[in-house]
Amino acid sequence: MRLASLRHGRDGKLVVVSDDLAWYAHAGPETPTMQAALDDWARAEPRLRAISEGVNTNTILRERFHEREAASPLPRAYQWADGSAYVNHVALVRQARGAKMPESFWTDPLMYQGGSDVFLGPRDPIPLKDEAWGCDFEAEVAVIVDDVEMGVTPAEARERVRLVMLVNDVSLRNLIPAELEKGFGFFQSKPSSAFSPVAVTPDKLGDAWRDGKLHLPMRVTLNRKPFGDANAGEDMTFDFGTLIAHAAKTRELAAGTIIGSGTVSNRDADGGPGKPVSEGGRGYSCIAEQRMIETIQTGKPVTSFLKHGDRVEIEMLDAKGHSIFGRIEQEVAKA
Amino acid sequence: MRLASLRHGRDGKLVVVSDDLAWYAHAGPETPTMQAALDDWARAEPRLRAISEGVNTNTILRERFHEREAASPLPRAYQWADGSAYVNHVALVRQARGAKMPESFWTDPLMYQGGSDVFLGPRDPIPLKDEAWGCDFEAEVAVIVDDVEMGVTPAEARERVRLVMLVNDVSLRNLIPAELEKGFGFFQSKPSSAFSPVAVTPDKLGDAWRDGKLHLPMRVTLNRKPFGDANAGEDMTFDFGTLIAHAAKTRELAAGTIIGSGTVSNRDADGGPGKPVSEGGRGYSCIAEQRMIETIQTGKPVTSFLKHGDRVEIEMLDAKGHSIFGRIEQEVAKA
Repeated sequence: MRLASLRHGRDGKLVVVSDDLAWYAHAGPETPTMQAALDDWARAEPRLRAISEGVNTNTILRERFHEREAASPLPRAYQWADGSAYVNHVALVRQARGAKMPESFWTDPLMYQGGSDVFLGPRDPIPLKDEAWGCDFEAEVAVIVDDVEMGVTPAEARERVRLVMLVNDVSLRNLIPAELEKGFGFFQSKPSSAFSPVAVTPDKLGDAWRDGKLHLPMRVTLNRKPFGDANAGEDMTFDFGTLIAHAAKTRELAAGTIIGSGTVSNRDADGGPGKPVSEGGRGYSCIAEQRMIETIQTGKPVTSFLKHGDRVEIEMLDAKGHSIFGRIEQEVAKA
Repeated sequence: MRLASLRHGRDGKLVVVSDDLAWYAHAGPETPTMQAALDDWARAEPRLRAISEGVNTNTILRERFHEREAASPLPRAYQWADGSAYVNHVALVRQARGAKMPESFWTDPLMYQGGSDVFLGPRDPIPLKDEAWGCDFEAEVAVIVDDVEMGVTPAEARERVRLVMLVNDVSLRNLIPAELEKGFGFFQSKPSSAFSPVAVTPDKLGDAWRDGKLHLPMRVTLNRKPFGDANAGEDMTFDFGTLIAHAAKTRELAAGTIIGSGTVSNRDADGGPGKPVSEGGRGYSCIAEQRMIETIQTGKPVTSFLKHGDRVEIEMLDAKGHSIFGRIEQEVAKA
C-alpha cells in the first residue's frame, strides 16, 4: 500500500496511490489525514488496503496522481528523530577534520531530535537566507512507527514500522561546529526537512526490506548529474529496530513518530571511503562526504555547498526500475 | 483567558477555565482541541474570549474544574524547544564540575530540541525504569506561539506569544554526560515533560508579564517541603522574544510550538549561587542545582536525585496568592 498527502491546509489530504504512482483515490472522511490514519492504524489499515486494491485494479473512482501536488506524507509530525546508522559516514567526517571517533560509536547509536512542526513538500524549494551557512542535502531512509512502549526490544521495534519513505535532511554545515560545541546538539543547523511524495508499507518492498533495512540504492543527483548511488542496505550498522529501541529507551513514542537512518554511506570493498560517481564509484548521499573525500585525497574540498538555484533529486528504484516513493526534487531558493 | 485540555483521546478536549480555576465551559466543536484553536487563533480567540467572559460571570453553562482531570494543555505538540535562559544556572553547573563557561553563553542562547510526541499530564506519575539514571525535575516557564516567520526579530517574536504555562522538564542527569559527549545533544536523558493544568494568555498576567519575561516566583516543593522560590523574571538573560527569534533564525515555526525558558535560577545579591530555602534563601528549581551548591560548599552533593515515591510540586501564585496555572504535582513511579 502506498499513501500520500495532497497539499491541503496544515495536514494535507490523505490519498491512496497506485503501485505505478499514476493514480490515487481519496482515503475518505474516516481518515482525512495521514496522522488520523496513524492514530488508529489497526482500524484504518484494512479500509485503506481495500482502497489500494481498488485503485490498483481500477475498480473504484480514481484520479491522476501527480507527485508535484503532494506534500510530505506527514506535512507536520509530533516527532522526527534522526539516527546516524551509517557509522562509516561519521568516521569519514571525523577523519576529514583529524578527530578520532570513539569506539562506542559502533555499538551505541547516535540520534538527534529534529524539528517536526514544518516539513517542506518533496518539490518545495529549500529556503536559504545565506549561502555562507553551507547548505547541504542528506539522502536518508525514514520510517513512520505506530505507538511504541518504553523499553521495547529491537526485534519488537521492527514490527512497529508502518510506513517507509525517503527524506532530504537539509543541513547547514557551517552552523554545525559552533552549535555542537555548545553541547546542546543541532538546532539552527537543521532547518526543515523534506520527505518523498509517497510513503510505502514494508510488504510492498518485498525482499528489499529485510533485517530492518532497505536494501536498495539511494539515487541522488545534483544539478541533474549523478551524485550518489549508495546501497541503503549496506554498511548500516544499526537497523531500524535498533534505532527505534534506542529512541524508546526512557520514554514511549507516539504513533506517527518518524525515525531516520542518517545519511546513507557505503565503504569501498577494501574498507576505503569509496569514489565519486564520476570516477565509477557509488558516490555520496551528501556534499559534505564528497568534500571529505576531496580533502583526504587533495588536502582541500573542491565541491561547494548548495547555492541559490542548485537542484537536488533523491529517488529509489525497484528491481524493475520503477520509482518506489516518487522523487524528492528541490531547488535552493533565496529566503 | 485561561485554557485547559481535559483528558480525552490523544489531544484532549479544549475547555475555557474561570480565573479562579474553579469552573470550566467547553470550547465547542469549532475548536475541539488546543491545537485546533492555535491552528486558527485569529478566528478562535474572540469566540474563546466570549466563553471566558461567560464562565467568569456565570452566564453560560459551566461545570466544576478539577486540575487532576486536565492533561497538559497540549497533550502532544509539533514542537517543544527548550532554551537555557538563566545563564546563572549553566555557570553553576560548569563551576560544580570545574569546567569554564564560554563567554559567548551570555550572548548566544542555548536551546535544545525536545521530544513533543507524548507529554505527561500535570498530575501523572513520572515513569522511571531505573533510579540510577538520576531523575530530576526542572521548573520552567514556557510559552506557546502562533506561526512565526523565519528571521523574526526578538521584538516581533514577543508579539507571537499566545499562551504561557509552567513545565516540569524531567531530566535523567546520569545519562546526560555520555549523551552530550557524543555531540548530538539530549535524547534519552530528556524523557517526557509535563505542563501545568492551565495555559494563560499574557494579558491575564498583568504587570507580571513584561519585557518578554514572567516576573513571579516559581514555587517548588519536594516531598511537600519548600525547595525553590526563585523569581522567573530575575536573571533571565534571554527573554522569550530572544529565545523565539533564536529558534526561528533558519526556519519558520508552526503555530503550537512550545518554547521553554530553561530552569529558573537566581543569583544572590552579591552574585553568589544563593542559599537553600531551609537556610532562608530562594532555593532552586532543580535538584542538580542544589547538589552543585552542596558540592561547592562541602565538596560533595548531599541531596539525592528522585527515587520512586518522591513527589514534586511546581506552581506560581499571583500577587493575591492565587494559583495562576494550577499545580504540576507528580510522583515518581516504577515504570
